[in-house]
Amino acid sequence: MYKLTEIVKSLPETIPFVGPEAQERNRGSVFLARIGANESVFGPSESAIEAMRNTVRDVWQYGDPENHDLRCALAHHLNIDFDQVVVGEGIDGLLGYLTRMTVSSGVNVVTSLGAYPTFGYHVEGNGGNLVKVPYCDDHEDVNALLKAAERHKAALIYLANPDNPMGTAHKAEVVSAMIDRVPENCLLVLDEAYIECAPAVIPPPVDVESKKVIRLRTFSKVYGMAGARVGYAIGHRDLIACFEKLRNHFGMCRISQAGALAALADQSYVRATSARIAEARLRIAEIAKLNGLKAINSFANFVAVDCGKDGDFAKKVMAELIKQGIFVRMPFAAPQNRCIRLTAGKVSDLKHFERALPIALQSAKD
Amino acid sequence: MYKLTEIVKSLPETIPFVGPEAQERNRGSVFLARIGANESVFGPSESAIEAMRNTVRDVWQYGDPENHDLRCALAHHLNIDFDQVVVGEGIDGLLGYLTRMTVSSGVNVVTSLGAYPTFGYHVEGNGGNLVKVPYCDDHEDVNALLKAAERHKAALIYLANPDNPMGTAHKAEVVSAMIDRVPENCLLVLDEAYIECAPAVIPPPVDVESKKVIRLRTFSKVYGMAGARVGYAIGHRDLIACFEKLRNHFGMCRISQAGALAALADQSYVRATSARIAEARLRIAEIAKLNGLKAINSFANFVAVDCGKDGDFAKKVMAELIKQGIFVRMPFAAPQNRCIRLTAGKVSDLKHFERALPIALQSAKD
Repeated sequence: MYKLTEIVKSLPETIPFVGPEAQERNRGSVFLARIGANESVFGPSESAIEAMRNTVRDVWQYGDPENHDLRCALAHHLNIDFDQVVVGEGIDGLLGYLTRMTVSSGVNVVTSLGAYPTFGYHVEGNGGNLVKVPYCDDHEDVNALLKAAERHKAALIYLANPDNPMGTAHKAEVVSAMIDRVPENCLLVLDEAYIECAPAVIPPPVDVESKKVIRLRTFSKVYGMAGARVGYAIGHRDLIACFEKLRNHFGMCRISQAGALAALADQSYVRATSARIAEARLRIAEIAKLNGLKAINSFANFVAVDCGKDGDFAKKVMAELIKQGIFVRMPFAAPQNRCIRLTAGKVSDLKHFERALPIALQSAKD
Repeated sequence: MYKLTEIVKSLPETIPFVGPEAQERNRGSVFLARIGANESVFGPSESAIEAMRNTVRDVWQYGDPENHDLRCALAHHLNIDFDQVVVGEGIDGLLGYLTRMTVSSGVNVVTSLGAYPTFGYHVEGNGGNLVKVPYCDDHEDVNALLKAAERHKAALIYLANPDNPMGTAHKAEVVSAMIDRVPENCLLVLDEAYIECAPAVIPPPVDVESKKVIRLRTFSKVYGMAGARVGYAIGHRDLIACFEKLRNHFGMCRISQAGALAALADQSYVRATSARIAEARLRIAEIAKLNGLKAINSFANFVAVDCGKDGDFAKKVMAELIKQGIFVRMPFAAPQNRCIRLTAGKVSDLKHFERALPIALQSAKD
């Protein structure tokens, strides 16, 4: 009989997120609005769709294991070199490799209490300990993260900017100053999944000379290709080269590679989607206000709406929205869990939300 | 600055296989025949192509993290339960998870000398030691593998049946007897990537009650979807459940999920492809014979052709074939590396091979 490693023996059989499909199977009907997973309801650009369609017949071929063309295009786009960027199976896949590279049994890692759980899943999957720092005023607390990293001799600090699940963001100068202050033997994991819809004052300049930071970006959000599984990491070439030691070299879907390449080339579509996201954020805030609720100012493709009471209340609101056919999620940890989180939806999605919200609020109050 | 784990520090920056695209970039021209990576040149079924095309527009949605529909269909197809099969990012991806589950620093693992290098890559990536057993008469040596596992208290034994790179296979009763003899605290990793084109006498019955074996299968070979990255593992539900501790839950491409589901439903296409593969194997053997060479009898979608001399000679033959525009590969270890390995090609692919082989042989002799 097989024998598990000590680390794996100690791990739970987790599901970081229950997918909307599982919820639909339980409900016995499909959602009217899918605005819970921060996918881009606006979809990929037509050129990306065409590129993917045209590649389907070639799917008998493995994807290029070097992701050469996509990495070249990304390097050009970012004004860096080919060997300063690595492509992987979404940010989740890259976080898996990065934690394996840096986290072993007993190693401490700092994150925010209630931040992206898949990061923690990968840290604990490698035997690491998570040190969780509370949010400060619905923002990730840069100073407290640094202090905790120093105190616990952390190997990694995780910061999402813009943040998920709150949508708040720090300005470039704050993040740059944070990078400068990363302790010895530590690396800042800067998750910029939502960066394409944040204003230009948010991302610090790309600095691939620093060995203190690695930046993660994705085609899953504003590019509208979550199901294609394409992310990339930007950093010092020595660190980027280390992915070659561990990554699944033939892990990328050939259709996804072609789609990402075309999507990257269509920056006007990215700008147009970004504008639609901004409109949807305003609309969500309006709907919230009409119902006596307050939307947290967001720089991402979603909005956290403060339901005005505690986590139990927000959970009831969420449950009733789901019952009404609106797929939404909410933050895991207090006090952020006073909110529900809505993805920037189409006009039709938000009409469903507008109809269902008063019902959900009433139901939660009863 | 970042600090790597001791294991990762010790690892080389490997490339398990150089892709044909990299070779094409070096050559400055595309290959005339792509028959080196055991992809299925016959492509996926039309229904799979249609399913993938129809899913492209939905790629803004993450794939179902439970792979529910595909696992249900596989369970039905294999006459097992839903929780006795797990879907992953190709067999490579599943090998990554499986080795993480069972291999930690200093753990021994048994494989054949010259067997699938990506398995070894993942074992060493977790700090494991590879014990390599020679082939016997171009077959993986079942008895020697078992003996080595016993002696070295191995956590895993790897057996590909049919084998890659030789294409030979053991009959079901041999593999069944091997499973019975797997030592305590050991697991047989039975890689059946090529099983769909092997005759019915090769696969042992699927037994999901045994905790001594896990079987790996894929849509990359006979199903013609290598670039989609869909594999699955069949085994005891307790072992299958452990993948939930480590796997990238949102790792699957949504387009690939849809394609695999449609491909599985089209078993008549699988049979037709299998017949075309068998024809191509015969044709490769004929071409070999016409050139005074001997083809190893193959049960896979490729044929190893014995070039009649040593590894250096075969390497020269391969190099000249590549120069002539024929992408082929060859076994890594002696004495199997007296062969070159040709994927079952289309008639047109094999015409290119037929033209180039005498030139390559002459060039190698010069």
